[in-house]
Amino acid sequence: MSTKQLNVGIIGAGRIGKVHAETLAFRLPEVRTLAIADVNREAAQALAARCGIPTVTESSAAIFANPQIEAVLICSSTNTHADLIVQAAQAGKHIFCEKPIAHDLGQIDRALAAVEQAGVKLQIGFNRRFDANFARVRQAVVSGEIGTPRLMHIVSRDPAPPPVSYIRVSGGIFLDMTIHDFDMARFLIGDEVEEVYTSGGVMVDPEIGKAGDLDTALIVLRFRNGVIGTIDNSRQAAYGYDQRVEILGSLGSIATANCYPNQAVVSTGTEVRQDLPLNFFMDRYTESFASEVRAFVQAVREDQPTRVAGIDGLVAVVMGLAARKSYDEHRPVRLDEVR
Amino acid sequence: MSTKQLNVGIIGAGRIGKVHAETLAFRLPEVRTLAIADVNREAAQALAARCGIPTVTESSAAIFANPQIEAVLICSSTNTHADLIVQAAQAGKHIFCEKPIAHDLGQIDRALAAVEQAGVKLQIGFNRRFDANFARVRQAVVSGEIGTPRLMHIVSRDPAPPPVSYIRVSGGIFLDMTIHDFDMARFLIGDEVEEVYTSGGVMVDPEIGKAGDLDTALIVLRFRNGVIGTIDNSRQAAYGYDQRVEILGSLGSIATANCYPNQAVVSTGTEVRQDLPLNFFMDRYTESFASEVRAFVQAVREDQPTRVAGIDGLVAVVMGLAARKSYDEHRPVRLDEVR
Amino acid sequence: MSTKQLNVGIIGAGRIGKVHAETLAFRLPEVRTLAIADVNREAAQALAARCGIPTVTESSAAIFANPQIEAVLICSSTNTHADLIVQAAQAGKHIFCEKPIAHDLGQIDRALAAVEQAGVKLQIGFNRRFDANFARVRQAVVSGEIGTPRLMHIVSRDPAPPPVSYIRVSGGIFLDMTIHDFDMARFLIGDEVEEVYTSGGVMVDPEIGKAGDLDTALIVLRFRNGVIGTIDNSRQAAYGYDQRVEILGSLGSIATANCYPNQAVVSTGTEVRQDLPLNFFMDRYTESFASEVRAFVQAVREDQPTRVAGIDGLVAVVMGLAARKSYDEHRPVRLDEVR
Amino acid sequence: MSTKQLNVGIIGAGRIGKVHAETLAFRLPEVRTLAIADVNREAAQALAARCGIPTVTESSAAIFANPQIEAVLICSSTNTHADLIVQAAQAGKHIFCEKPIAHDLGQIDRALAAVEQAGVKLQIGFNRRFDANFARVRQAVVSGEIGTPRLMHIVSRDPAPPPVSYIRVSGGIFLDMTIHDFDMARFLIGDEVEEVYTSGGVMVDPEIGKAGDLDTALIVLRFRNGVIGTIDNSRQAAYGYDQRVEILGSLGSIATANCYPNQAVVSTGTEVRQDLPLNFFMDRYTESFASEVRAFVQAVREDQPTRVAGIDGLVAVVMGLAARKSYDEHRPVRLDEVR
Repeated sequence: MSTKQLNVGIIGAGRIGKVHAETLAFRLPEVRTLAIADVNREAAQALAARCGIPTVTESSAAIFANPQIEAVLICSSTNTHADLIVQAAQAGKHIFCEKPIAHDLGQIDRALAAVEQAGVKLQIGFNRRFDANFARVRQAVVSGEIGTPRLMHIVSRDPAPPPVSYIRVSGGIFLDMTIHDFDMARFLIGDEVEEVYTSGGVMVDPEIGKAGDLDTALIVLRFRNGVIGTIDNSRQAAYGYDQRVEILGSLGSIATANCYPNQAVVSTGTEVRQDLPLNFFMDRYTESFASEVRAFVQAVREDQPTRVAGIDGLVAVVMGLAARKSYDEHRPVRLDEVR
Repeated sequence: MSTKQLNVGIIGAGRIGKVHAETLAFRLPEVRTLAIADVNREAAQALAARCGIPTVTESSAAIFANPQIEAVLICSSTNTHADLIVQAAQAGKHIFCEKPIAHDLGQIDRALAAVEQAGVKLQIGFNRRFDANFARVRQAVVSGEIGTPRLMHIVSRDPAPPPVSYIRVSGGIFLDMTIHDFDMARFLIGDEVEEVYTSGGVMVDPEIGKAGDLDTALIVLRFRNGVIGTIDNSRQAAYGYDQRVEILGSLGSIATANCYPNQAVVSTGTEVRQDLPLNFFMDRYTESFASEVRAFVQAVREDQPTRVAGIDGLVAVVMGLAARKSYDEHRPVRLDEVR
Repeated sequence: MSTKQLNVGIIGAGRIGKVHAETLAFRLPEVRTLAIADVNREAAQALAARCGIPTVTESSAAIFANPQIEAVLICSSTNTHADLIVQAAQAGKHIFCEKPIAHDLGQIDRALAAVEQAGVKLQIGFNRRFDANFARVRQAVVSGEIGTPRLMHIVSRDPAPPPVSYIRVSGGIFLDMTIHDFDMARFLIGDEVEEVYTSGGVMVDPEIGKAGDLDTALIVLRFRNGVIGTIDNSRQAAYGYDQRVEILGSLGSIATANCYPNQAVVSTGTEVRQDLPLNFFMDRYTESFASEVRAFVQAVREDQPTRVAGIDGLVAVVMGLAARKSYDEHRPVRLDEVR
Repeated sequence: MSTKQLNVGIIGAGRIGKVHAETLAFRLPEVRTLAIADVNREAAQALAARCGIPTVTESSAAIFANPQIEAVLICSSTNTHADLIVQAAQAGKHIFCEKPIAHDLGQIDRALAAVEQAGVKLQIGFNRRFDANFARVRQAVVSGEIGTPRLMHIVSRDPAPPPVSYIRVSGGIFLDMTIHDFDMARFLIGDEVEEVYTSGGVMVDPEIGKAGDLDTALIVLRFRNGVIGTIDNSRQAAYGYDQRVEILGSLGSIATANCYPNQAVVSTGTEVRQDLPLNFFMDRYTESFASEVRAFVQAVREDQPTRVAGIDGLVAVVMGLAARKSYDEHRPVRLDEVR
């Protein structure tokens, strides 16, 4: 491994940009963050102050132009991802990009082609692969602990829907929310999905329906190796963030439970109870955000492949488009119909 | 309530006939079992001796002809159910019949018509409705504890497949195994299913596939009220009998775990472990078998409707036929296509 | 094993007498209950009617005098146990007797001497040994699954205290309530306690203190083999009946949880909850009551030693007296100081 | 709150010094660590490099002499604590000191007197108070959620004993290991212990006994408010680090479970299992170490009392001495006998 520090730039000082900037500053001494860009200069400055980032800019161009910077983290809004990947690749920077790459396959193709051509590394922000629970499930599959997988279930529910204004630009539930679960399904089983069937509805808020989206969905996945999977999505679970998976294999099963802020059980005259699970992704997946960035840094410094490739970003979007098509046409849809 | 004892006859001294005979003999003093019929006279005699049943016969006709007998329990093989229901109804006996009524809708119609015409009571043996876990889930729905249901999952896996010789006459996984889950789905949600979509495969034993059946299935249910449900079936779970349900509603969720022979947890140098769950239905559903018979006896004695009606027996078979059709035609199938 | 039925008589038609009469009548076809005695003739008659017992008497003498009766179950109040054991033994009957034998060691000695002299079998009603959870813990100790035991904890709390009028004649918490736990401690570890140290108080109801008793106690046990144990007793747990044990051994630990009426977990906007555990001993220990009687019947019919001997009844009382003495004298007390 | 950074020095670059140095460097931007002292200069230099600490010294005197340094963290070996507290106080520095202050009450008195006289703040490193589980239990007591406490149990077992060479200088199990539990007991109940009774033994390793120490102990605590508590200590739990508490109150109970590296449950043909709990304090209490330092920094910057005072450090040692005396004299010992 190189012993010198890796110089990086961050594009986007929003919620996830802040998470990654703090990981780099406080947990990865092998990294120096040289610059942060955001059109919201105030946010960028505050974050720079907190994390000791010397340069603040409103334009990502300044980051790409900085020859010292070897890698960039793209944490801006989705509609900018593809263009920024192209620009970063052309500037010869290694790239960590939040999901999804784009809502449009053409844009994704263009971005991945640029990465390919430039020979830089690209890691997509599917952080959940780095979560201790899901990593343990993947390990059980890889090690043969549960034998050959047969059935898989993913439950992935948010505590509450985002504002309808966000939903309108989100690409829809399948590209905004399920996309994590599509990636998780492929990651856990280690095989490609061939066909999807979607059942769904508007059960949480009619405004979501008026915006042309669903808020509740059940997607059946059929993998090439025969495994059958389901993804259960709801924009609203009264009890908070619900993130579980379960796999039945020929030798047994593995199932994960939610994560709780404490392990206390209170028994009273009316019930035996626990506090609610960790409420949302910033609390639930804290460690995985740090781990994915650590893994990216390590891949760059050791010149290894990243653990979530560009193709993973592409396939998850293909699955999302197929899931929507299945819902619209009320029939199972093969992924090769979409692409 | 009548204070005199109810006189019953039992047809079938096999496994489930034995369970019901013992319930009647040892747990329901308000019942007298006057006769038991089985072509296997030896089995019938042994059971009669154990349970104090005065008359043993090889023919069910003798039971129908006995004017003292007010109600019969039909515990013989499935292919005899419909005819026996017709005969029992014509003889004016109240009827408890094991599931399924028949594999063929015409036979079920005939049986239900005979019951209707005779004005006798009929209860179908969907014992799981009487299980403490599932009754608790139903209560949570009825009471509004979890609000309006949105998503429902049933996991129903056997420890090991039956012999292929049995599978060949079983009516297939949907009529033999899933039929309990179809009924459970309707019971829990309290509404009718409109459409099913089946994904399935042969993952446990290729011989099951050669017999024209599946051993693994995932069925998506769409209810008239919009609820989306899944049933996960496997003929083989390495760890034993897996019987769970989960419902997400607008105000929360309810989920059941499996039942264990003890509540001991052992922690060693390598793991924290429990013994395996109760292995199969005779252990797992012991109490529900007694409860369903108690409920039947009570319905007859108090002249109340039975808690699982003939229509419940019919609809579950319709669902099974639709599920198979969906699998064969690889598309969602509406129940009204089958009937 | 003898193939003929065992003829028994029951003394006492109260709560526990009813439980045993029903077990004998409905679950043990190898037993005929010929007679039941209770000064409350009405209770005895009702129970006789329910369980098909041909003879009802107000006097236990009639039972001892009946030459057909081979064994008796003594389910009357504690103050009668010792005398009834003596009479039963002198009449040559095998004896199942509820705990405790007596509050007084002299009476116990007399009773055990009579049993010894008559050569009849005696089983004391420490039903908890037959509970699935505690039997599993004992098995872990015997099999070496957790290695050599080092520390043991018993938690044994009632949902609510009995009436003070009962407490006054109960022999005190140690002979009335802890006695089960003293026996459990010996059973689980398979060794004798050498010394006890009691800390306790009146925390539930001052009236219990005025009656000269405690309602909360913590007893430290030191076994001859060096194991250290605790018993935690409270007359009142707001959430119901709390019955757990835990053992730490050289290779691991085993711990039991409480038993619940169902395995459903409800998650709402404020908490994740279960229903309360089974509330009291009639629900929690149902199966163990049947199992202990089955074991007694088997021991008599097969001429084997009973699984809970007279000495077990004696030692538990010695431990109770030592525990009280320790509390009174505020120091550790050796069992051989009491006896 | 002051907006300027707090300047601190660290004494001791061993395991716990490293933990605190990293917390200060990476998680508390409001703190600047100006210097670190350790006789092991190499360790100090490595840590300084990692955490950006400008000055490395072998002598704590250099830290006390630095007028810029406002507060010190004493992370050196126990035998140095008291002297360093005195010197730090005399130098006018606020003090965070690892537990225990000393094994000798005279030294503790001297240290606390110096702190008192100097008017500086002192916080003792009882980090477990800041753990999410135990904080939740304390909250249940304070809020009245479980009513008035009656019984309390602390289980505190290490995965494996330290080297006997360490045990010889450790002050014995009560001052080295139980001291955390003594503090926890007082913290949870919010009252003082009046009397202790110790039962214990050498069950893990006879060498520990030869060194004059115990490796297994059960201590009964009697609080002034009547609560009865126990502490269960073992130097060896085969399954790892076991850290649980349970309190029974008049309105209910609260109990904590151990913490696990993941929430996955594997079911196979032989068992239902989880991975082992977090193995030792560096993993189990990670967050609490950061929280205690954050709380200390906050107390200093906001001029508030620290959340673990000098008296807490004193009382825990008094309890340890009383526990040993009880073991030696085989009788309950009041704390005022020791002090």
